[in-house]
Amino acid sequence: MSYLRYLALTLTLTLSLSAEDGYRLWLRYDLITDESLRASYVHSLSRINFITRSGVVSPTISVAREELIAGINGLTGLKSEIALGSSVAQSNFGAEGFALGRNATGTFTIHANTDVGILYGVFDLLRRIQTGQSIETLNVTSTPKIQQRLLNHWDDLNRFVERGYAGFSLWEWFNLPTVRNPRYRDYARACASLGINGTVLTNVNANALILTPPYLTKVAALAEEFRPYGVRVYLTARFSAPIEIGGLKTADPLDPAVAAWWKAKIDEIYTYVPDFGGFVVKANSEGQPGPQDYGRTHADGANLLADALAPHAGIVMWRAFVYAAENTQDRVKQAYREFMPLDGKFRDNVVIQIKNGPLDFMPREPFSPLFGGMTRTPLALELQITQEYFGGSTQLAYLASMWKEVLDADTFNAGPARGELVESGATVARIIDGTRHNQHLSVIAGVANTGTDRNWTGHPLAQANWYAYGRLAWDHTLSAESIAREWAQLTYGPNPATIQTITKILLGSLETVVNYSMPLGLHHIMAEGHHYGPGPWVEHARPDWSSRYYHQADPLGLGANRGVTGSNALETYAPELRALWGNLETCPENLLLWFHHVPWDHQLKSGHPLWDELCLHYQQGVDEVRVMQQEWASLKGSIDAERFAEVQARFRRQELDARDWRDACLLYFQEFSKRPLPTGVEPPAHDLAYYKSVKLRYAPGHPGDK
Amino acid sequence: MSYLRYLALTLTLTLSLSAEDGYRLWLRYDLITDESLRASYVHSLSRINFITRSGVVSPTISVAREELIAGINGLTGLKSEIALGSSVAQSNFGAEGFALGRNATGTFTIHANTDVGILYGVFDLLRRIQTGQSIETLNVTSTPKIQQRLLNHWDDLNRFVERGYAGFSLWEWFNLPTVRNPRYRDYARACASLGINGTVLTNVNANALILTPPYLTKVAALAEEFRPYGVRVYLTARFSAPIEIGGLKTADPLDPAVAAWWKAKIDEIYTYVPDFGGFVVKANSEGQPGPQDYGRTHADGANLLADALAPHAGIVMWRAFVYAAENTQDRVKQAYREFMPLDGKFRDNVVIQIKNGPLDFMPREPFSPLFGGMTRTPLALELQITQEYFGGSTQLAYLASMWKEVLDADTFNAGPARGELVESGATVARIIDGTRHNQHLSVIAGVANTGTDRNWTGHPLAQANWYAYGRLAWDHTLSAESIAREWAQLTYGPNPATIQTITKILLGSLETVVNYSMPLGLHHIMAEGHHYGPGPWVEHARPDWSSRYYHQADPLGLGANRGVTGSNALETYAPELRALWGNLETCPENLLLWFHHVPWDHQLKSGHPLWDELCLHYQQGVDEVRVMQQEWASLKGSIDAERFAEVQARFRRQELDARDWRDACLLYFQEFSKRPLPTGVEPPAHDLAYYKSVKLRYAPGHPGDK
Repeated sequence: MSYLRYLALTLTLTLSLSAEDGYRLWLRYDLITDESLRASYVHSLSRINFITRSGVVSPTISVAREELIAGINGLTGLKSEIALGSSVAQSNFGAEGFALGRNATGTFTIHANTDVGILYGVFDLLRRIQTGQSIETLNVTSTPKIQQRLLNHWDDLNRFVERGYAGFSLWEWFNLPTVRNPRYRDYARACASLGINGTVLTNVNANALILTPPYLTKVAALAEEFRPYGVRVYLTARFSAPIEIGGLKTADPLDPAVAAWWKAKIDEIYTYVPDFGGFVVKANSEGQPGPQDYGRTHADGANLLADALAPHAGIVMWRAFVYAAENTQDRVKQAYREFMPLDGKFRDNVVIQIKNGPLDFMPREPFSPLFGGMTRTPLALELQITQEYFGGSTQLAYLASMWKEVLDADTFNAGPARGELVESGATVARIIDGTRHNQHLSVIAGVANTGTDRNWTGHPLAQANWYAYGRLAWDHTLSAESIAREWAQLTYGPNPATIQTITKILLGSLETVVNYSMPLGLHHIMAEGHHYGPGPWVEHARPDWSSRYYHQADPLGLGANRGVTGSNALETYAPELRALWGNLETCPENLLLWFHHVPWDHQLKSGHPLWDELCLHYQQGVDEVRVMQQEWASLKGSIDAERFAEVQARFRRQELDARDWRDACLLYFQEFSKRPLPTGVEPPAHDLAYYKSVKLRYAPGHPGDK
Repeated sequence: MSYLRYLALTLTLTLSLSAEDGYRLWLRYDLITDESLRASYVHSLSRINFITRSGVVSPTISVAREELIAGINGLTGLKSEIALGSSVAQSNFGAEGFALGRNATGTFTIHANTDVGILYGVFDLLRRIQTGQSIETLNVTSTPKIQQRLLNHWDDLNRFVERGYAGFSLWEWFNLPTVRNPRYRDYARACASLGINGTVLTNVNANALILTPPYLTKVAALAEEFRPYGVRVYLTARFSAPIEIGGLKTADPLDPAVAAWWKAKIDEIYTYVPDFGGFVVKANSEGQPGPQDYGRTHADGANLLADALAPHAGIVMWRAFVYAAENTQDRVKQAYREFMPLDGKFRDNVVIQIKNGPLDFMPREPFSPLFGGMTRTPLALELQITQEYFGGSTQLAYLASMWKEVLDADTFNAGPARGELVESGATVARIIDGTRHNQHLSVIAGVANTGTDRNWTGHPLAQANWYAYGRLAWDHTLSAESIAREWAQLTYGPNPATIQTITKILLGSLETVVNYSMPLGLHHIMAEGHHYGPGPWVEHARPDWSSRYYHQADPLGLGANRGVTGSNALETYAPELRALWGNLETCPENLLLWFHHVPWDHQLKSGHPLWDELCLHYQQGVDEVRVMQQEWASLKGSIDAERFAEVQARFRRQELDARDWRDACLLYFQEFSKRPLPTGVEPPAHDLAYYKSVKLRYAPGHPGDK
């Protein structure tokens, strides 16, 4: 032996202790390090009463109690005593609301009419403690503004998730009903912590097999796992199921045999799942079967199912996402044209589920005109939490910023504009929560971004989108910023600088993606099929699946003319908005190319001509990713190494992707504008032919490339 | 408020603390509770020397050191000091072996020629401590008996795993190379802990895209993650790649342009992965392209790749799993007929990779006759760790029992039998480890049972198969029982009763599955496509994919006649085995129906006629599952609740499955035997039509039902 020397002691331990793998989400309950704060909670929470109308220890009360004991114990070290009492008086916080406060004797009380109200109260209280809020004089009531707050899972029975970027489906159909992954309860618990009270288990591109007994047995097992957490199960109904699994020759909604089949099938479903919530239906859309196959209307189809569900109090969520290749009208007008004549013709337990924009979850769209149009039908807002057009789980886009734009948008369907937007009283939020038109049914749906990835959402920061969706579903008046701040604290701890940095990163992230992908109202110029990355050159046999249909680039300018000289999709909006958006000078620049074909040399508010402004937006998007990277880098050492590294790697990838977007789009549009890149815009790394040649295969979530 | 009462305190906390989710495998390092034992380790291990030839702190030395410090610290609380020294003398433990012991000064020493030898020594030492062995006077040397100890992953680029039952592929191709899941290192660490030193990343049903630069960049990233753990990366080569990605018109192995293409491609691969291991090739098998498409031989194909790999010291593992629909010979003879004439015609860096049996990983087969037949070519044993024919990850089958049958089987290719099997010196083990025929190259391959499931293998107890494969790959003389016992202790802790129970369950489990699925030498009577559950009635356009081809049931009897009056597949074995197996009276009953068509009333050793014996085997299989359930139930409270419940649920499902197997097969065969079920066999739950009607869809791992 020649020599001995001691190994450096600075090596990082890389053993898989998986302490910070993100699995815990925002439900962490780590000990509060501020001793006086901890002491104040110990003082307030030694005795806690649950007060319900029944006073019975249900499975929901049990999980509420377990959650609260574990939460307080983890946060403060205290072992609270929890008592259950009953109060016959119906209180004013409805079926799911709750009140929190301390009574005269110093006992902390969670009061609700129902058991799930108690559970929501528990999560609310724990969130207050996790975020360091004083509860000593707390006296607060909370009720949800929307009744049905759902996640929609586009999950296939083979566990592929359409537009899923966080692994594969959480539902292990083959193992069910006997083998039940403990994660089912963790999923329901996370949902309940936000007030999400329903989940649609299956893809809107539906498979009728889910309605057969072997699968219903499995659905029942999931429902059983979720039920203590107040999460009801819904399914998607394939309209042709009577043929495919029922042995009928038709699925015509006006055929009595079809109606009888659905009635029997739905009765059967309720024998498996007594609290089954109902169906989401995608019909006559992108190849899915529907009532129009038989010359019937969407109302005929929806009412068929609604009549069979009604005795069980189930509902139908009929999607308005319809358009057809053979329809020569502007795609963004088609759903409006199809559904407006049906307003008022749906059963009471039908809600029309409408994507936020008239096209398809683009980075920025105006709100769907149906929100302003249909006044006699309950309307549900469908948001996409999964980032189909926002870089999957590779890129960061905090979507609450966009959702708030939509929720707060004024449809002006309250008559002539009365100045301030808030005064018209007809925001999308007030339409979907039912207050605008006094609807008895209100629904919001979010297409889930969850999957088998250990951290649930792929990108660690994409958890914030699940969180924000749930929080807004409960209370759409919350701000995107307050939710971001809250989530950051729950998820990364109490350090104010950390919270501030993460909040800032989140809040800027949406516009960053818009800038480097589809700025100034551009839309649908992504790559074909998987939708990841740029594809302004995409040409498809269907014009409405081709990029040029949307960007309309030519030697004169860029953008879709949707005014009176163009497709006049503008006419689907209220006069106030037609006036605002129809005028090139007053149209907000972030929707400019949605509504107008704008000359390359048209001067924008910045003083730049369109071409330069476009280039600078793309460059700005790239620059902003770099700033986010720097901001994230500043957190090194303040947060755990595992999540730090994972986000850091994703930002590195996002920068590469952002540069590809910029270079590909500018090179492509430059073929039309014939103008040089303005100062400050980096030269492209490759030529246009290179970007066109990039063929991404096996991108996650793409159904065509399985 | 009417009354208050305290909630029961016995509710189990169900919060997701995920302490015992199985992720840690056999590498747990929990504090030893026996204080005197702990003290003895503290005494022995305060100072540890690593001695290598170089004495340089490589990444491998770093991870070895981290592992050892964390392991000893976890197990004993001690913070060991670790020093690194060098020794120029070449020791006798080869490139990967090591020596463990304490020197005169009381310092514990791990001595190896290479860094990876040190790492293997670390894991060996930790295993000794985990299993409570004395190390005070330890002085031991260990070297692997087989050079290349590989996992084969049948993983597609879309993350589907063919015959995978533990979720989806661990390789996140889309995220690579930038975003790297920490699990990559955990995977490599688990492999290294067993001495597994290579991994074939891709499916044998290969995709040429893996050989293109975008994917090679990703492969390089995985190789970089695995390299510190001594795990080299291999790929599968699609024989038609020169056409598909090379733009050539042919893949003829004798075409100079094809040879040049492969040479350039392989040189290119080594620029990405300098220590690339080589290729596995499935050619002219089940639709895969191969040299026979051009009238060439397997040797022509293998040598083409071998010549291009040779300058880089890469190897070709050419699979012998070949059979053809148009070949009218008994399928179990075909590979023998095809490969025997090629013996001696392969390059030095080619190994022929042979499944343990001549058919396809059936629950029980005789060993492949190629092991006895090819004497001038290195032969690799391919085992299937994933349970394609053993109930996926739903059912328990400890496969080491079967692998030992194969490894210890005597091929009798050493000349006339000399009495004791051990004396013939020609066991499968000695053929594949190279000692029988002095081969310079030795390889063993196990088709991995890993996936994205949190516990890696789906069934918590299926981890034992990964473990046993690795241990046997290092040392095939270990017994199935000793490995089971060791694994049980590492994975479930030191309680002797617990270890004993788990060991007993594991050791009985293989024969249990054989009994309820394919007893007495039955084979290939499983359901079509997904291979889950019974399908003795399966009829396919290809006879060799039909069950009757194998079971040959008729009114006279059951079983395949492979003797001289039948297909004479027997002739592929040595005379000793032909005599033993060819005689109905001497043929081991566990292979009876493999080699003989046996009359229903033929009396077996038990005194029962075949029909009764068959029925009783099926019943015994079901009974044994029930016994396993009871034995597992006895562990309640002795092991953690999470893994207890998960295995318990899987046993429940296994009992249902076992009953289905029994009832379906007996009802089917009864149509031929026309005999009643003997006493002791439970009546079937349904009629045969029911079992035939069961159509399992979307079973995991089935490539035809994605």
